[in-house]
Amino acid sequence: MKTYTLDEIAQFISGKIHFEKKIAFNGLNDLKNASEDQITFIGSRKFVKYWNDSKAGAVIVNESIKIENQDRPIIYVKDADIAMANLLEVFSPKNGPVFEQDIHPSAIIHPTAKLGNDIKIGAFCYVGKGVVIGSGSTLYPNVNIFDDTTVGENCVFWSGTVVRENSVIGNNCIFHINASIGADGFGFRLATDGSGLIKLPHIGNVVIGNDVEIGANTCIDKAKFNSTILGDGCKIDNLVQIAHNCILGKFCVMSGSSGLAGSVVLGDGVMIGGGAKIKDHVTLGSGVSVGACSGVISDFSDGKSILGYPAAESRDTLKQWVTLKKLAKS
Amino acid sequence: MKTYTLDEIAQFISGKIHFEKKIAFNGLNDLKNASEDQITFIGSRKFVKYWNDSKAGAVIVNESIKIENQDRPIIYVKDADIAMANLLEVFSPKNGPVFEQDIHPSAIIHPTAKLGNDIKIGAFCYVGKGVVIGSGSTLYPNVNIFDDTTVGENCVFWSGTVVRENSVIGNNCIFHINASIGADGFGFRLATDGSGLIKLPHIGNVVIGNDVEIGANTCIDKAKFNSTILGDGCKIDNLVQIAHNCILGKFCVMSGSSGLAGSVVLGDGVMIGGGAKIKDHVTLGSGVSVGACSGVISDFSDGKSILGYPAAESRDTLKQWVTLKKLAKS
Amino acid sequence: MKTYTLDEIAQFISGKIHFEKKIAFNGLNDLKNASEDQITFIGSRKFVKYWNDSKAGAVIVNESIKIENQDRPIIYVKDADIAMANLLEVFSPKNGPVFEQDIHPSAIIHPTAKLGNDIKIGAFCYVGKGVVIGSGSTLYPNVNIFDDTTVGENCVFWSGTVVRENSVIGNNCIFHINASIGADGFGFRLATDGSGLIKLPHIGNVVIGNDVEIGANTCIDKAKFNSTILGDGCKIDNLVQIAHNCILGKFCVMSGSSGLAGSVVLGDGVMIGGGAKIKDHVTLGSGVSVGACSGVISDFSDGKSILGYPAAESRDTLKQWVTLKKLAKS
Repeated sequence: MKTYTLDEIAQFISGKIHFEKKIAFNGLNDLKNASEDQITFIGSRKFVKYWNDSKAGAVIVNESIKIENQDRPIIYVKDADIAMANLLEVFSPKNGPVFEQDIHPSAIIHPTAKLGNDIKIGAFCYVGKGVVIGSGSTLYPNVNIFDDTTVGENCVFWSGTVVRENSVIGNNCIFHINASIGADGFGFRLATDGSGLIKLPHIGNVVIGNDVEIGANTCIDKAKFNSTILGDGCKIDNLVQIAHNCILGKFCVMSGSSGLAGSVVLGDGVMIGGGAKIKDHVTLGSGVSVGACSGVISDFSDGKSILGYPAAESRDTLKQWVTLKKLAKS
Repeated sequence: MKTYTLDEIAQFISGKIHFEKKIAFNGLNDLKNASEDQITFIGSRKFVKYWNDSKAGAVIVNESIKIENQDRPIIYVKDADIAMANLLEVFSPKNGPVFEQDIHPSAIIHPTAKLGNDIKIGAFCYVGKGVVIGSGSTLYPNVNIFDDTTVGENCVFWSGTVVRENSVIGNNCIFHINASIGADGFGFRLATDGSGLIKLPHIGNVVIGNDVEIGANTCIDKAKFNSTILGDGCKIDNLVQIAHNCILGKFCVMSGSSGLAGSVVLGDGVMIGGGAKIKDHVTLGSGVSVGACSGVISDFSDGKSILGYPAAESRDTLKQWVTLKKLAKS
Repeated sequence: MKTYTLDEIAQFISGKIHFEKKIAFNGLNDLKNASEDQITFIGSRKFVKYWNDSKAGAVIVNESIKIENQDRPIIYVKDADIAMANLLEVFSPKNGPVFEQDIHPSAIIHPTAKLGNDIKIGAFCYVGKGVVIGSGSTLYPNVNIFDDTTVGENCVFWSGTVVRENSVIGNNCIFHINASIGADGFGFRLATDGSGLIKLPHIGNVVIGNDVEIGANTCIDKAKFNSTILGDGCKIDNLVQIAHNCILGKFCVMSGSSGLAGSVVLGDGVMIGGGAKIKDHVTLGSGVSVGACSGVISDFSDGKSILGYPAAESRDTLKQWVTLKKLAKS
């Protein structure tokens, strides 16, 4: 286990030490659970009261916050939250799971696939015809990438991820466990003789930009024609559904169990709360924020904060909630 | 890439050409994104205004719609939506990902398994004891089918799909990436000594009819006893939960992230909107339509359109929504 | 197929036989679907009327219930529901899918992994560096367990399950198909230059107690630091999301498609209904019961029954529902 001194820690986060002490720090933790060899954080005045009872060896504090008990190590920084993020990086194990061999001999890689340098491919991976994988990318065991898909550099595919044919993936993307990329969209038409539903072929693909993260067991369907598109920097949580022909701008964030029906268009920086669902063909402007558990059935323009089912501007929905609560009591 | 002439396209969809032009069409696209070598569609009067600015090489139009700009190729048809569906079929690549060998040598197939003709089994598939797979079926890499399961003809299992023991699957079914078929139902009883919850064994199975499609990361649990049943022609989207002992009639459609708790019974042609959940033991008659994001806690008879939480007939729920909106404003 | 006589059945469940008959019973079923060689149950007076038309060979009945038709075998017991649970155990096939070899030769097991006795590892499994697996545990084909994870005794991992590094799992746990354990939590911070979102490393792990069951396609993310914790006896259904740093007490039950955002704390015996979502950092006391499809955005103390969105005490939410219904009708 890596350990760092108080001085080293302070240097990592450009902090100013109050009260020196010789400790070998091996990690970080919250005020309540930190032990003597761990560092903790106070990023808000309301947590100051927990410092006295904390066993942490040192605390990192916003320089704007006053700490009473000053006979223990404190590191003052501009922003304790950013310092914590930086320390997570410092303590993070640099190498993930071991690869005894860069390309495991059990992996099946089609002879026409083109692999860049420093690529790791784990046991039982399948890489299809014409696949291109950029340098520095890693496929953990049991990943499947189908024909003619292009993957950029430094991407990571965790086990169970499957990418269907013709997908296009940028650089620095992460696909968590059991992600499903490029399955057929959900489209059918009534048989003209009324005998049931006929599957519509989906001949489009999925296009994912750079720096995108896709959560575990999340699904992104291929387009009917054209592409289902995720812009650079999108961050998608677990168990999210993104249906065929959706177009997400840059830096959109979708929290766990949320979903977009077919052909939804999101601007840049749209935030979708956990469990929220967006109706097919809805367009949300850049910066729209959708509250958790909302159901959105109409368009909203840039910057709106929306909530509820059917989703309305948050202040209107909150007013409805208050009104109903009062009426039920009267 | 396959290309087709204007005449060939018109023939595929039984259309009447207005304004001949020599173009090699290689695909189809919407009005906004189509290029000169692509065909586009107008199935509704409200889209006519986009035709002037579209770069599409030709447009397929309902014969009931009048197009002003007539110096470009137009193909008139009875129903542009059906024509589009037919053309998707025409342009769809006939063969999926390549199989260099019909049965990949790495696949583990129990000697008692019975395989029909023209079966394809990809790398790292596991086929258990006594499994029967009908002719023309395909298992992409990394599929697991457990003991004594029977699969009909021309089924497709995408990677990551797992089918547990004793399942029965009809013909022409499609299982998308990471589908989970036949896991134990979620059933427990309180220990008589109050020490916790005891698992109820689930000794039933899953029975799936013909022409059923199961979405990516969707779960269908086995029955406690008897069977969890999906009738012919059911179409289930991604991330859907179908719990133990549910019985779905024919041609039921469940959209993304919807779910049925245990022992739900659906008639024929029931439509469940995205994210909607149905309480255990609820029965919905044939043709019931459940609005997206609804929570259904009581039975509804044939043909009802229901909405909201708790779900009521749609007109009643809409009235509630309007009432609350008005009250909050007053 | 195993069969049992009426006497044997009565003995298994400590029941008293009324009307002897020689039948070889091979299973159990509900009143409507049972055949002559199956046993059925009546645990509530309201089902008595179905007994006359049932084809079941015998019925197990609460001794407090009076059955009219007495010329067919009846077994009287104290509690028919518990008797049914016990008989499910009796008729349950003792052995799951066959393992021709205990450790399949295709499995990749790191030389540093420590395996207990009587362990079964199926085809295409991957077991990483330093993994410890307790005696009696089973990995079905296509399971991945990453470096330095510790698994207790008698655990079962169904195909497609992936467990990331450093996880700690107790005894007698079951992981259903395509479960995702220990993926990175969903945490980002704004880049200080406003250029987008920076991933927060997640250096914690997942800790799961004894007797825990995790549903198919369910996700449990690792902690930012510290651990995401599930106490002994927790039962988690399919497609459930448990985000980073959540802490669940003992015997919590989460039904299908429900979800916890980051750092949610549940006491013991909390019940979360299907589709319900809990906001990040919310604390629910022991014995709290959350109605299906609820959205919980605030803390609730021990024993509360809550419902709705935003979730309130159930009686208050029900009053709101009734009030709105009346207002919409007036």
